[in-house]
Amino acid sequence: MSGYEAPLADIQFTLESVAGLHDIAGLPGYGEATPDTVADILAAASTFAGEVLAPINRHGDRGCTLKDGAVTTPEGYRDAYQRFVADGWNAVAFDPEYGGQGMPWLLTTALQEIWNGGSVAFAACPMLTQGAVEAIQHHGSAAQKAKYLPKLVSGEWTGTMNLTEAQAGTDLGAIRTRAEADGKGGYLLKGQKIFITHGEHDFVPNIIHLVLARHPGGPEGHKGLSLFICPKFLVNDDGSLGARNDVTCVSLEHKLGLHGSPTCVMSYGEKGGALAELVGEPLQGLPQMFTMMNNARLTVGVQGIGIAERALQQAAAYARQRVQSAVVGAPKDANLPILHHPDVRRNLATMQVLTQGARALACFTAGALDRAIRHPDSAERARQQARLDLLIPITKAWSTDQGIRVSSLGIQVHGGAGYIEQTGAAQHYRDARIFAIYEGTNGIQAIDLVGRKVQRDNGEAMHSLINEFTRTLGALDDQHADLGALRERLLPALQRLGLATDFVLTGGRDDARLGLAVAQPYLNLAGTVMAGCLLGLAAAEAVRRLAAGTGDSAYLARKIGFARFYADNVLGESAAYLAQVTGGGDSLLALDPDAL
Amino acid sequence: MSGYEAPLADIQFTLESVAGLHDIAGLPGYGEATPDTVADILAAASTFAGEVLAPINRHGDRGCTLKDGAVTTPEGYRDAYQRFVADGWNAVAFDPEYGGQGMPWLLTTALQEIWNGGSVAFAACPMLTQGAVEAIQHHGSAAQKAKYLPKLVSGEWTGTMNLTEAQAGTDLGAIRTRAEADGKGGYLLKGQKIFITHGEHDFVPNIIHLVLARHPGGPEGHKGLSLFICPKFLVNDDGSLGARNDVTCVSLEHKLGLHGSPTCVMSYGEKGGALAELVGEPLQGLPQMFTMMNNARLTVGVQGIGIAERALQQAAAYARQRVQSAVVGAPKDANLPILHHPDVRRNLATMQVLTQGARALACFTAGALDRAIRHPDSAERARQQARLDLLIPITKAWSTDQGIRVSSLGIQVHGGAGYIEQTGAAQHYRDARIFAIYEGTNGIQAIDLVGRKVQRDNGEAMHSLINEFTRTLGALDDQHADLGALRERLLPALQRLGLATDFVLTGGRDDARLGLAVAQPYLNLAGTVMAGCLLGLAAAEAVRRLAAGTGDSAYLARKIGFARFYADNVLGESAAYLAQVTGGGDSLLALDPDAL
Repeated sequence: MSGYEAPLADIQFTLESVAGLHDIAGLPGYGEATPDTVADILAAASTFAGEVLAPINRHGDRGCTLKDGAVTTPEGYRDAYQRFVADGWNAVAFDPEYGGQGMPWLLTTALQEIWNGGSVAFAACPMLTQGAVEAIQHHGSAAQKAKYLPKLVSGEWTGTMNLTEAQAGTDLGAIRTRAEADGKGGYLLKGQKIFITHGEHDFVPNIIHLVLARHPGGPEGHKGLSLFICPKFLVNDDGSLGARNDVTCVSLEHKLGLHGSPTCVMSYGEKGGALAELVGEPLQGLPQMFTMMNNARLTVGVQGIGIAERALQQAAAYARQRVQSAVVGAPKDANLPILHHPDVRRNLATMQVLTQGARALACFTAGALDRAIRHPDSAERARQQARLDLLIPITKAWSTDQGIRVSSLGIQVHGGAGYIEQTGAAQHYRDARIFAIYEGTNGIQAIDLVGRKVQRDNGEAMHSLINEFTRTLGALDDQHADLGALRERLLPALQRLGLATDFVLTGGRDDARLGLAVAQPYLNLAGTVMAGCLLGLAAAEAVRRLAAGTGDSAYLARKIGFARFYADNVLGESAAYLAQVTGGGDSLLALDPDAL
Repeated sequence: MSGYEAPLADIQFTLESVAGLHDIAGLPGYGEATPDTVADILAAASTFAGEVLAPINRHGDRGCTLKDGAVTTPEGYRDAYQRFVADGWNAVAFDPEYGGQGMPWLLTTALQEIWNGGSVAFAACPMLTQGAVEAIQHHGSAAQKAKYLPKLVSGEWTGTMNLTEAQAGTDLGAIRTRAEADGKGGYLLKGQKIFITHGEHDFVPNIIHLVLARHPGGPEGHKGLSLFICPKFLVNDDGSLGARNDVTCVSLEHKLGLHGSPTCVMSYGEKGGALAELVGEPLQGLPQMFTMMNNARLTVGVQGIGIAERALQQAAAYARQRVQSAVVGAPKDANLPILHHPDVRRNLATMQVLTQGARALACFTAGALDRAIRHPDSAERARQQARLDLLIPITKAWSTDQGIRVSSLGIQVHGGAGYIEQTGAAQHYRDARIFAIYEGTNGIQAIDLVGRKVQRDNGEAMHSLINEFTRTLGALDDQHADLGALRERLLPALQRLGLATDFVLTGGRDDARLGLAVAQPYLNLAGTVMAGCLLGLAAAEAVRRLAAGTGDSAYLARKIGFARFYADNVLGESAAYLAQVTGGGDSLLALDPDAL
């Protein structure tokens, strides 16, 4: 068992120093998101997460139950959700036209970290609703928006995304669930979907399923898919609930973790067909899904950060109270806790900087998202959109990989106690493992990065970012001990990323298989270097504030120290990844797959 | 669910090319361990593991139950154990004087990989018995040996090691369980031990506990500990079982994994005292434990390899049958399984080479163990003992870390299915996590390596090994495409290990905290480089055999390819670890522990 308190100082500082919160608040429509207001909102969220979510997280591991099609969530989850909605937390990011608060995605990203720090299984539900809201907001008709958005925005109803089928995971073109015209302008869905997060639960009276299915008479493959709205209960024109639709949860998956979040097998049309409405144009299902994918993938990356922070806090708390063996350099009878052993400190410091680095990357990405939507200059919006597209797969994959790594270190800090479930450290490790898989496996993110985000624009967005970092970090004062040391580590790391980018644009494009073969290390390299650069920029801002005498000097000094620890202990991984990118693909492709 | 078939070709080739099986068979007493005989034994073990152990592994995950002090193991485990004993597998490594078969530890190491590949939870029981046998064999009296060894060697009884207490994990000096003289030349034990693997179970009629406890009147700390034999049932002089002793299992831990192996809280002396016999001299408990630690740590390293191989086989089988999306470069309608996607191939190839590398390291270590015991020349025995001592922490920690890494990749290859428990991939991930913790956490292994194994002999054993590898690998034919490429990668990696070794001998010794602060990356560096060198040596032998036209040419060609994949895709990590060792300690120690 452990509590959770959001790392407010670091979140706020990251928003300001890395993501440009002041600038974001200056974008049209975001005027309320001043740093002070944001700080107040984050503090309230920390209280909510600490008091309402954190206490139910351990218990939620006992899981959900399914009986006669109804899913019962773990004790406390329903109440927590209702408080979450009552306090308005569900609506922060959404369009004020439908009851949202219209705050920047940057703030929502920070809030999502906090909800996930409180309970990842809880936070999965609003995350899916967000996907449904975006799908309808972007592609739905005015009538659909009026009918569904207000209650999805408020959280009175929740939403789901129904993509996967047993034979159709990464390959959505293999989807078999089909729609038939119902003769009244609507559709009937028939088929089975798997891995549906919060597909059925007891939080709210209605669940709005967004379903990818084969359009009547459409072609085979992914071009034959349309997107449908299929509510659990039909919604009458006056907004009241009508008949129960022909969609049921037929089983719950027994998973490695995330037990507090029901993962459902959903059956559509067992009694003739589930009534559904087409979203937007026919046969546009896949591109419609992709428009909301960026946001969903960013959110999954943030799940990795939330759980990393939780695992870190739990491990640090344990290391503060567990006494074991004398600490070298301290008096034998000092009874110092294991926090003081250099080896334990290494584990905790590594957890800290990986979490902070992933946080910086996610906030930087969210800043690009807000600029891509709201910047008044269309050329700048396009530039930020390209940057966002580039950053999304990196943030999703790298942050979730660090979530796994950090939660594993969290177990290690606990020693034997970490392997005992009651401690709770193991739950984080189990929960975190899914983030590298769903919403596109991290391998798929890497392929997306190399193919769609680097090769397609000839490396323009990537080189632009590398150049920007090189310029900014190159301007760091090399007479300043810390900044000089950071500059000395970061500039060569950026060069490695440049070399690797050139490789995927030449050898990796001439031979598409080679590009795919080195995609994973290329993404790892990009994530490692970018997180390091952002921590370096944060350190530079900390130096400025220390010199100016503004801010919490103890925090600022620590922040510089963590940036240096990252540069000295994590950034070196970029050399290993570069070696893989430029020299590792050929020996992979030379291996006969049948020998694997 | 998945089956298991021991990788006999790779095990046999590793024993011959890396560990010098021919030479080992030439050592006094090991004459029967000819390569042909070893191959026959391994084939029989593979059959046993595949037919008896692998089928019970998934089911064993449901766990053990405790009722009225009696532990019931999962269905099938008791039968499997009795077949294991009946077939003589328990006795392979032990002294023929007590019924053992006196085979080399090298063979036992290979067998242990196979048992763990079949079921890690099952294999834990004989592993603990091995510890008890060694304790009594090395330190027990003639009467104790006669009384306990024959049945422990055969496996008719099992053994346990009782070290840990709630307040005494790494710090055994904090043990509180105490012994009192019983007035008849024996002792009464009182206290509670935790984390006792197979402390109570239903396999056999008696369990022989080896217990570390405070000696009456002894000093505080670790110097006050003696080692005791405390049987579950007292043993009469005629070998028959007497009264039930005052030791009971009071609870089972609810763990992350390894559920088929009961982890017990053992209570001694609740009814006045558990009768126990002192082993050897009083107050020698800790050094006695350490004499058997080498072997136990090697065995834990091998657990990591066994589970890695199992996870690999399961992932490869899945990748061979799962079809998802078209493969680049193949016809669209080829319906090739995901095995052919370069990104999946990268995951599988990485799993392969990490498993093979850890196998090579463990077999090389076991070869040193046999030579240290049996070599006719005492100077050579001492040299091999020093090498063994050096290799043990590296093998334990690096191999178990790779076991975790490989089992995580195994989940990733499965995609969403990997997160579902029924698939079985997640069980390996859960099971594997303990190996990095017990028998000394991997952090403790790193500290042992730096302090006791490198700094204490002034780097002699390490530099001797580096020099040997440099000489052998430097002699590789640089005109041969594969050997030349391997040489080009391996020699710089060895230089990195040399530089890091110099660092821990200078800066890391001048400031003990600095040595401790960089111990983990130093161990990781050593493991990464040594495994690479051993795979390089294996590749050189494969080239020789191919040229000579002996052996399975397809296997030999693959082996060379895997060595190259390792050199091109894993070995580069040594650069990152070197950077941490030489440049990462200071920024760690500069961080205020209270800020972590």
